[in-house]
Amino acid sequence: MTTTDGVLKVALLGCGVVGSEVVRLLAEQADELAQRVGARLELAGVAVRRPARHPEVPAELLTTDAEALVRRDDVDVVVEVVGGIEPVRSLLLAALESGKSVVSANKALLADDGATLHDAATRNGVDLYYEAAVAGAIPLLRPLRESLAGDRITRVMGIVNGTTNFILSRMDATGAGFDEALAEATSLGYAEADPTADVDGYDAAAKAAILAGLAFHTRVTMSDVHREGIGEVTAADVASAQAMDCTVKLLAICERTTVADGTESVSVRAHPAMIPRRHPLAGVGDAFNAVFVEAEAAGSLMFYGRGAGGAPTASAVLGDLVAVARNRVSGSRGAGESAYAALPIRSMGEVTTRYHVALDVADQPGVLAGVANAFAEEGVSIQTVRQEGRGDAATLVLVTHAATDAALGRTVEKLAAMSLVGRAASVMRVEGMTGE
Amino acid sequence: MTTTDGVLKVALLGCGVVGSEVVRLLAEQADELAQRVGARLELAGVAVRRPARHPEVPAELLTTDAEALVRRDDVDVVVEVVGGIEPVRSLLLAALESGKSVVSANKALLADDGATLHDAATRNGVDLYYEAAVAGAIPLLRPLRESLAGDRITRVMGIVNGTTNFILSRMDATGAGFDEALAEATSLGYAEADPTADVDGYDAAAKAAILAGLAFHTRVTMSDVHREGIGEVTAADVASAQAMDCTVKLLAICERTTVADGTESVSVRAHPAMIPRRHPLAGVGDAFNAVFVEAEAAGSLMFYGRGAGGAPTASAVLGDLVAVARNRVSGSRGAGESAYAALPIRSMGEVTTRYHVALDVADQPGVLAGVANAFAEEGVSIQTVRQEGRGDAATLVLVTHAATDAALGRTVEKLAAMSLVGRAASVMRVEGMTGE
Repeated sequence: MTTTDGVLKVALLGCGVVGSEVVRLLAEQADELAQRVGARLELAGVAVRRPARHPEVPAELLTTDAEALVRRDDVDVVVEVVGGIEPVRSLLLAALESGKSVVSANKALLADDGATLHDAATRNGVDLYYEAAVAGAIPLLRPLRESLAGDRITRVMGIVNGTTNFILSRMDATGAGFDEALAEATSLGYAEADPTADVDGYDAAAKAAILAGLAFHTRVTMSDVHREGIGEVTAADVASAQAMDCTVKLLAICERTTVADGTESVSVRAHPAMIPRRHPLAGVGDAFNAVFVEAEAAGSLMFYGRGAGGAPTASAVLGDLVAVARNRVSGSRGAGESAYAALPIRSMGEVTTRYHVALDVADQPGVLAGVANAFAEEGVSIQTVRQEGRGDAATLVLVTHAATDAALGRTVEKLAAMSLVGRAASVMRVEGMTGE
Repeated sequence: MTTTDGVLKVALLGCGVVGSEVVRLLAEQADELAQRVGARLELAGVAVRRPARHPEVPAELLTTDAEALVRRDDVDVVVEVVGGIEPVRSLLLAALESGKSVVSANKALLADDGATLHDAATRNGVDLYYEAAVAGAIPLLRPLRESLAGDRITRVMGIVNGTTNFILSRMDATGAGFDEALAEATSLGYAEADPTADVDGYDAAAKAAILAGLAFHTRVTMSDVHREGIGEVTAADVASAQAMDCTVKLLAICERTTVADGTESVSVRAHPAMIPRRHPLAGVGDAFNAVFVEAEAAGSLMFYGRGAGGAPTASAVLGDLVAVARNRVSGSRGAGESAYAALPIRSMGEVTTRYHVALDVADQPGVLAGVANAFAEEGVSIQTVRQEGRGDAATLVLVTHAATDAALGRTVEKLAAMSLVGRAASVMRVEGMTGE
């Protein structure tokens, strides 16, 4: 704790889009930040791979030796905006073990192995904050961890990935297919050259794991999350959604379920789903993020804002940095990990959802009865059914009531095997409808 | 600090709609709260006026002597849900001076004299938290104070009073006048028997003062806030708003303004205004609250949820109670008041706003020229003008560009004095439009 001279030293790991904004804001707001913290925040060093590419950082601060930087005696706080699992995990562990507090924007690492980092922070009596890891600038983790600490959160559902939201918004607006919309997102800079992490839902799943951990006081890792990307979402799916006044969104959903004997469990998933157009999440366009939180006493809350980008993410990083720095100035530590509940993870098959199923069927007697039987045999109740004739064939659109995902999956398999039923034109979960 | 035995004692002042929910949640969630705090939270006493009316509270906890309760040696935290200025201020000061931390839901007191309470908290090294004072269950003060502590907030604009929002929503939906909508709100329990604090904007103004203080690191009191209620809003105003695809809302608005020489000032106001129907705040209906926050790095953020009611407000109170209790367990203190910026308050006359003005005019040559001149003489630029003939008379509807409120006020006075202009059918500020 080198605050005796009124200065706190910050080591920055990474200086890309977010890191360079952190450097800029630390300089521009130096006086204000000092007033808020009670000590000046000064950069001790900035670890990058290629120092020559960072003319915006004073040369004497740049280093390629991140390992030495995080262990330096004069460093109080390590800020990490590199991303990825290794070597970052080792670096942050070394920082925590050396008594430094850590601010990270690294959703992948937190979702993969947050427990190891939390344990190290607790053991060393230092802070580990990571507001920027989920939903960029939107204050979300602190409200979950602190503001709602006296309530029981039952559900978190949100749009937490801007790239896929841009793609799905374009498909909805223009009728484009997935490939076309992805190409547009790439050309506009909304999608990375390798869009796998976004498009296949890894990014949303990591954020879902982090949100579920905080909401339910339970350790949740990436492997606990049921993940489906948007690569299979077709223009036909989007059209089907529109036909029932819905739109398709990639949702991160964390739920607490209580069964009859009072046993609780937690389910965590990230997948595309249809939601009603009147649902507040339906209006969240382009690269924005929004998250709904439901708690027993508080009711429904929504948080909305920019989920990515250099400046918004840097805002979240600096908010954490100020909090961590204040704690060091006062010789205290913020609320650490809260994982006492250790609730079991519910498998996706046990999760209750609703399905929208659009089928191409032969337009002849007995088809509807056969289809309805397939649902009935699996105990899945149908909420609405609509048949549209097209000459010899017809399209049958069904929306179910809530049933277990396993039963719904078996029903769809059964339908696909029926001789009078052609390919399923669209099969997708439906969320956010009332009367489930 | 009586945490040696793993118990923190809580004194509750007031046991009405919110207080009884606090009692219920403390009992129902006792085990979970203990896990989150690291100590059990136990009620030391509940101060009420008429103990006989509170069968839900164990009799031995009830007391009418609030003054003795807040000074009791075994009390760690005082939770206040009484409301009003005195005797609450004296009680909370006594609590703080006795080394107790305080959680309050009292917007009027915080807006009237928060400085005295903050000074006492700082002097005694204890916490003063009041998330429940603004926007009920919505986590708003903590995000402003902590999550955005590394950013520069430029504007806060929100719907923070549920009663008036219900009334204005009904006027918008049904075409009802103010009196009729108020009567409906009263009969449904959305308005109190004496609705003055809500209808005249005192409640929204107090919340605006609290929000501005946190957002701008400046002490702001009720007397700094320009306040107008909704009692003068007519069915004609609402119809005029609808004609330009707007709706009328009572808004709390806090702005930071920087003039050419870099000098900054702050304006704080609560008044009805027209906002475009496509603005996210326009869709906030009934008794819900929503607040927009704009910050330089974070961009636009929105927070939405239940702004009042027993359980939602109790959720916010308990979140603060857990935070304060954690601090006591760890022997630390949360971030105290941040008022270093001490920015000057800008008078309403200097604030730039836009106006919607609907005038009944004689339908004859020269009227439009005369009206246009009145605006021009005050340097107010007109964005749109629309004239609708009705026989001999006509209605002239003008929307201005942003100009100082003083210039707009003078223009309206000038118009009212013109012989060819009848009464102004509707004069109202316009907020949330782009291109200001």
